[in-house]
Amino acid sequence: MFYLTLCLHLTFLCNAEEGLEFPNFDGKDRVLDINERNYKKALKRYHLLCLFYHEPIPTNKGLQKRFQMTELVLELTAQVLENKDIGFGMVDSLKDAKVAKKLGLEEVGSLYIFKDDRVIEFDGEFSSDTLVEFLLDVLEDPVEMINNAMELRTAKHLSLKMNEVNFYEPFMEEPAILPGRPLSEMDIVEFVKQHRRATLRKLRAENMFETWEDDMDGIHIVAFAEEEDPDGYEFLEILKDVARDNTNNPELSIVWIDPDDFPLLTTYWEKTFKLDLFRPQIGVVNVTDADSVWLDMSNDEDLPTAEELEDWIEDVLSGRVNTEDDDETASDQENSYIYVTEDSYENDEQDEEYDSED
Amino acid sequence: MFYLTLCLHLTFLCNAEEGLEFPNFDGKDRVLDINERNYKKALKRYHLLCLFYHEPIPTNKGLQKRFQMTELVLELTAQVLENKDIGFGMVDSLKDAKVAKKLGLEEVGSLYIFKDDRVIEFDGEFSSDTLVEFLLDVLEDPVEMINNAMELRTAKHLSLKMNEVNFYEPFMEEPAILPGRPLSEMDIVEFVKQHRRATLRKLRAENMFETWEDDMDGIHIVAFAEEEDPDGYEFLEILKDVARDNTNNPELSIVWIDPDDFPLLTTYWEKTFKLDLFRPQIGVVNVTDADSVWLDMSNDEDLPTAEELEDWIEDVLSGRVNTEDDDETASDQENSYIYVTEDSYENDEQDEEYDSED
Repeated sequence: MFYLTLCLHLTFLCNAEEGLEFPNFDGKDRVLDINERNYKKALKRYHLLCLFYHEPIPTNKGLQKRFQMTELVLELTAQVLENKDIGFGMVDSLKDAKVAKKLGLEEVGSLYIFKDDRVIEFDGEFSSDTLVEFLLDVLEDPVEMINNAMELRTAKHLSLKMNEVNFYEPFMEEPAILPGRPLSEMDIVEFVKQHRRATLRKLRAENMFETWEDDMDGIHIVAFAEEEDPDGYEFLEILKDVARDNTNNPELSIVWIDPDDFPLLTTYWEKTFKLDLFRPQIGVVNVTDADSVWLDMSNDEDLPTAEELEDWIEDVLSGRVNTEDDDETASDQENSYIYVTEDSYENDEQDEEYDSED
Repeated sequence: MFYLTLCLHLTFLCNAEEGLEFPNFDGKDRVLDINERNYKKALKRYHLLCLFYHEPIPTNKGLQKRFQMTELVLELTAQVLENKDIGFGMVDSLKDAKVAKKLGLEEVGSLYIFKDDRVIEFDGEFSSDTLVEFLLDVLEDPVEMINNAMELRTAKHLSLKMNEVNFYEPFMEEPAILPGRPLSEMDIVEFVKQHRRATLRKLRAENMFETWEDDMDGIHIVAFAEEEDPDGYEFLEILKDVARDNTNNPELSIVWIDPDDFPLLTTYWEKTFKLDLFRPQIGVVNVTDADSVWLDMSNDEDLPTAEELEDWIEDVLSGRVNTEDDDETASDQENSYIYVTEDSYENDEQDEEYDSED
């Protein structure tokens, strides 16, 4: 046994001094097979219970292997969080249909987290990294108590007043103050629900699918900007300006994607959207077929100004810039399969607008 | 075949609309088995060639499985970067010893990247995410040309002067200006080498082992701070102040770890260092045995001030605060195995220092 451990150490950690040991799955099964007999006990036993609701196990070997990989993600997550009082289980959508119904599991392929009397659906990247980070966040108290001198200074800096609830939208400098007093829990929940879709939202691994599903009538305005790259940083600053100017426009929401956060998707996006992601980009994506049009910044030496970007966004919101061709195929798009090539899209109009500075 | 694809889609992507499809390994072998006959051809053929230098394939089944997982990481990386003209190969330290010697591969378990006439050693987390991000960075030109009006404004904002090379250390507001003119390539390389170890450095997945190996006489001053958490953010601001005050002290380097960047290591660190990582922490870690001592902030309502932190750091650098007991075992620590329990460490001294504000 000692020899094996040593080998592993040599193969995988020979560069590491002590202090940075990534966990490998230790082979111990921690994920429960949930069924009618054990689900109540599991719910009672753990502070958090995470249930993966899945399709029946496939008979095909290749697919079985994929299924095992999914199980492995859960097993490793369970191992890493072993001392955090979190239970993990699998619920088969066919075999355990009754249990699923009782627990209110609906979306096959989702992970449901039971905490106290609430259910939280995890709708992010299915990797141990993302899951562990998400679950550690769920364990934390969602309300941060401001109760020491340092934090009071923080609060004052934000010009927070007594008995006032301020709502900070991402990337906004000024908060919205919740109207009405005294505020009930329902008032607050209602306000947050209404203002949840931010004018500028960052795509995050832990809820990326949720964000993507929350589209604007089937489209997203998507901006790619690498925060650590000088061009990307500048472009992001412009986006923030645009968002601050338009924070009261409920129709507008820009999804900001930092390619650095999604290395495995970067080349897929480049291919799907026919883009160079080494540069900042902004465009409109149709979420049904991933068809897209992008603001042409390739010939411009400068990035667009906030005003130019707002003009373009106005064109998008009014439908003047859209992902479909302006010819006859657009009228019956709901009933037929339309193939629109990137080349057939006419974007001379914008080129003109942004070339005029030269 | 259509059925299989559909199934997969249902199981893994049922939440996704189009636009966010994570790649699954497609089963095609792309990683080469490098040997004496093919290594020269491989070097010539690709813009980048990545060679994983590994121990001979183990005979034990469990270890073989781990080895296959490592191969899978490389295969998925190769698949994702398929159109980027990057070759991938494996070099067996026993079977291909001659090739390894010719190519200058030294550290088993490392990945070597050949670009033009240079070799870059990857010394980060061995995951597809991290590898893809790292390789995309390597593909980019390391020199950013400042050649348009927008970027010139940037440059002016940084008060960059003609024919001057400025060196920005991480988290510093003021640059160091490289002395002497005209500057040769060697001057610049030499200056960067000398100033490479920053006063405050962030641990990053892509070079975490390299950073960790670059210790200060066997220890690291490690600060844990979650940038997205209010306390963590405040503590990081204090750390930056300390770093700016001490940027000219070559003895001081603080490794800042944002636990959010390393979800899989968080509970390992909590266990190894006996810490609560929901709060900011700072301490000294002995990299040989991961023994550590941490500044006691648990009884304080406030975080330490920059001055208090500097006093503590002075104690660390002078050896007054260290990871070993002050008794007789310390004198012969190089020749014997010393077990120092956390409980036996006396840190009343600091408690006094920081309790004095109450």
